[in-house]
Amino acid sequence: MDRGPVSMHTCDSAVSLAFTILGKRWNGMIVDALSAGPLSFAALRRSVEGISDAVLSDRLTELAEALLLTRVVEPGPPISVAYTLTPSGEQLVPLLRQLGQWATAHLPQSEEQTER
Amino acid sequence: MDRGPVSMHTCDSAVSLAFTILGKRWNGMIVDALSAGPLSFAALRRSVEGISDAVLSDRLTELAEALLLTRVVEPGPPISVAYTLTPSGEQLVPLLRQLGQWATAHLPQSEEQTER
Repeated sequence: MDRGPVSMHTCDSAVSLAFTILGKRWNGMIVDALSAGPLSFAALRRSVEGISDAVLSDRLTELAEALLLTRVVEPGPPISVAYTLTPSGEQLVPLLRQLGQWATAHLPQSEEQTER
Repeated sequence: MDRGPVSMHTCDSAVSLAFTILGKRWNGMIVDALSAGPLSFAALRRSVEGISDAVLSDRLTELAEALLLTRVVEPGPPISVAYTLTPSGEQLVPLLRQLGQWATAHLPQSEEQTER
């Protein structure tokens, strides 16, 4: 039964790396929501339906640490804060769109989704 | 302050649909692990490092309900059970690889990842 340490097919490490970020609820949707341009926290929360303030705040910190977005403070008055994609984040957007096309073609759509 | 019901940028619903599946830890990695061919439960568990039996079992049920994989029982003796991608699941694989390439190029790699 022992197939040895090297005969096993292991999950591609690059794909695993991608899903350290994308395999968490909301992260892909937040990047997608920013694809049209910078948004304030409040506008982002409205764009990503169902997310709470606390979770959005956590995710924005995480995505900033992963260098996918930055927090931009524009001097006022009034001071305004917006979140904007970095070039790394922008390069993810076309892949997200391809995933969306794949999902539309292949995933069963729940009643909740089709009602929207 | 009211910007009306239609002026808000909302997250692309196709991308949201994709992340109902991919925005859960492990799902993308399980599909990727099956890209080389059918695997038994035990082989899958070894391929997806860190997943528990209970969570893998849940995820396989979910991915089967989403029609991305099927459970194939081969008559024995001994009877063997394997999980294999459907055509829908197979069409996701090249997108996962592109995400992996993006991640390798753009994501900061943690010490844990680079040690592997």
